[in-house]
Amino acid sequence: MQVNIPLQNDLIIRAAKGEKTERTPVWLMRQAGRILPEYRAVREKMGGFKELVKSPEFACEVTIQPVDILGVDAAIIFSDILVIPEAMGLNYEMVESKGPWFEKTIKSRSDIDALIIAQADDLSYVTDAIKLTKSALNGRVPLIGFAGAPWTIFAYMIEGKGSKTFSLAKKFLYTNPVESHLLLDKITQSTINYLKAQVLAGADMIQIFDSWAGILSPEQYAQFSLKYIDAICNAITELPVTVFAKGAFFARKEMGALNCATIGLDWNMEIKESRLLIGPNKTLQGNMDPCLLYADFKTIKKETEEMLKLFGPHKHIANLGHGVYPDIEKDKVRCFVDTVKEFRF
Amino acid sequence: MQVNIPLQNDLIIRAAKGEKTERTPVWLMRQAGRILPEYRAVREKMGGFKELVKSPEFACEVTIQPVDILGVDAAIIFSDILVIPEAMGLNYEMVESKGPWFEKTIKSRSDIDALIIAQADDLSYVTDAIKLTKSALNGRVPLIGFAGAPWTIFAYMIEGKGSKTFSLAKKFLYTNPVESHLLLDKITQSTINYLKAQVLAGADMIQIFDSWAGILSPEQYAQFSLKYIDAICNAITELPVTVFAKGAFFARKEMGALNCATIGLDWNMEIKESRLLIGPNKTLQGNMDPCLLYADFKTIKKETEEMLKLFGPHKHIANLGHGVYPDIEKDKVRCFVDTVKEFRF
Repeated sequence: MQVNIPLQNDLIIRAAKGEKTERTPVWLMRQAGRILPEYRAVREKMGGFKELVKSPEFACEVTIQPVDILGVDAAIIFSDILVIPEAMGLNYEMVESKGPWFEKTIKSRSDIDALIIAQADDLSYVTDAIKLTKSALNGRVPLIGFAGAPWTIFAYMIEGKGSKTFSLAKKFLYTNPVESHLLLDKITQSTINYLKAQVLAGADMIQIFDSWAGILSPEQYAQFSLKYIDAICNAITELPVTVFAKGAFFARKEMGALNCATIGLDWNMEIKESRLLIGPNKTLQGNMDPCLLYADFKTIKKETEEMLKLFGPHKHIANLGHGVYPDIEKDKVRCFVDTVKEFRF
Repeated sequence: MQVNIPLQNDLIIRAAKGEKTERTPVWLMRQAGRILPEYRAVREKMGGFKELVKSPEFACEVTIQPVDILGVDAAIIFSDILVIPEAMGLNYEMVESKGPWFEKTIKSRSDIDALIIAQADDLSYVTDAIKLTKSALNGRVPLIGFAGAPWTIFAYMIEGKGSKTFSLAKKFLYTNPVESHLLLDKITQSTINYLKAQVLAGADMIQIFDSWAGILSPEQYAQFSLKYIDAICNAITELPVTVFAKGAFFARKEMGALNCATIGLDWNMEIKESRLLIGPNKTLQGNMDPCLLYADFKTIKKETEEMLKLFGPHKHIANLGHGVYPDIEKDKVRCFVDTVKEFRF
């Protein structure tokens, strides 16, 4: 078990719980990654993305880098949402500049039956990385654990790789609705086991990424995605959970009813409208256009301050509306982070 | 000049004008294309996509195929939105199973200055195809002309190819706003010249495709896209114009104020909500999930009827919420078309 070291900076936890904070906390999706030369150096040494994910020591090192270098208010464990399909029996490769690739995909009921439900032990390399990182962070900032939403994991398991339309995955929903629910249920059970293990290992918050939410119709989203996110939220009540469903503008009202602390917004979602739809009880996270960080420092500062004003002083965790793009300059990211940290209402 | 042959089936024109129609008209985006074996046969003979686009005879042949084979209520001229950048001075190739690729892209003010404003003559192969098709259709159904929205064309001219994020194009907006407007203005002028020529050649309706609307923030969309679509709508008043901005859910209210007849909806946009946001005056087009056509006939029929009921009996043109996917079976498309044509309120 994890020794409980008190957090020196718990802004993000308090913001997630809806408590008033002295300033808005800030972190970035994909902050541990290619934007940092220090990350690229470690990765070169290791040879590949998956080796990095599977080595707790290196995952710990790159997880802490943005805390040191960017001054963010939280660390997020360096890992990948696709560790779940792998633990369930579908191995994947991360192909340089192409993305994930699965040798075997799910095509039938028997493929689904052959999958196991992942247990904590199957992902001990992640929980080991969390333990190590918690110990190395020594309470400086909270550590965020995460998983993909079942629909997004399902989409990769059927499609076998990234896709603009995920039409194979959507075809499976239309042609095999019963089997789809079986698979989504197995993924959900695996994800709950995995997140419970992350909580036990010492994670302070959890984020669920529904990266491919936006390709489903509102009806399909309710049926094949939100239902399973809801089950996860109801299972993980030990600590604050954030749900980030990219593109699911149509489900904002329903997301307001989830048993979670925070809803992530992408940069297409208007802030005031989102607050109205989601209601007053949730903390909101986001939602700067990641491309703003290509602009000059003055523009970044101005737009970031505008965003902070629109969200208001409380129940907001500043972030981009998507993962930071790998070719953004580190100093531009720092400008975003510093602007949030210096701003006072 | 075109001889005016009276239309035998003008359902879609009347629906666009807001007139009551005896049934809902139907067509599909990308109906002239790879879903039809007859199209694939012609294309094999011709050797490539661009040869087909540049040959009025073959463009005419494949434009009429879906009228004969699928029984749709309109033909749409077989062409490509990227003929505009080419006419302005940026040549492109259509790479098999990869998409468009530009040898030269726009990087600076001098690149923009070097572009010409396209005139009708620069695109005579398209207007010739329209004349030929109008004559061959002999009034059976209306012929739709089209162009890309300036922002979408801009995105390809900067990026040089398709992209998930179009981050180069968005970077250009943030780092070169003045030059961005110069380029958008040149594209808009070219597009107006091009569409005026399509009208003169005999097109009965015009559709503007803003395929990459959904990657801009609401503020950037208003500034860098909607403004130019508005200019086009104000210039093309001779016949009904449809604006289809994929992913621009956040701009539906503003689209209700455009000087156009019809607004296209994608399948993420809820029908009742869209009607409320856009207002009662526009005709709406869409918006079935293209993946529905992977389902069985019974499901296609049921879901299509549900959609028709949600739109109501008037001011609706049935379509998918995106171009039909190339691997959809022809009979499934026919089922969608026939369901619309047989349905009575």
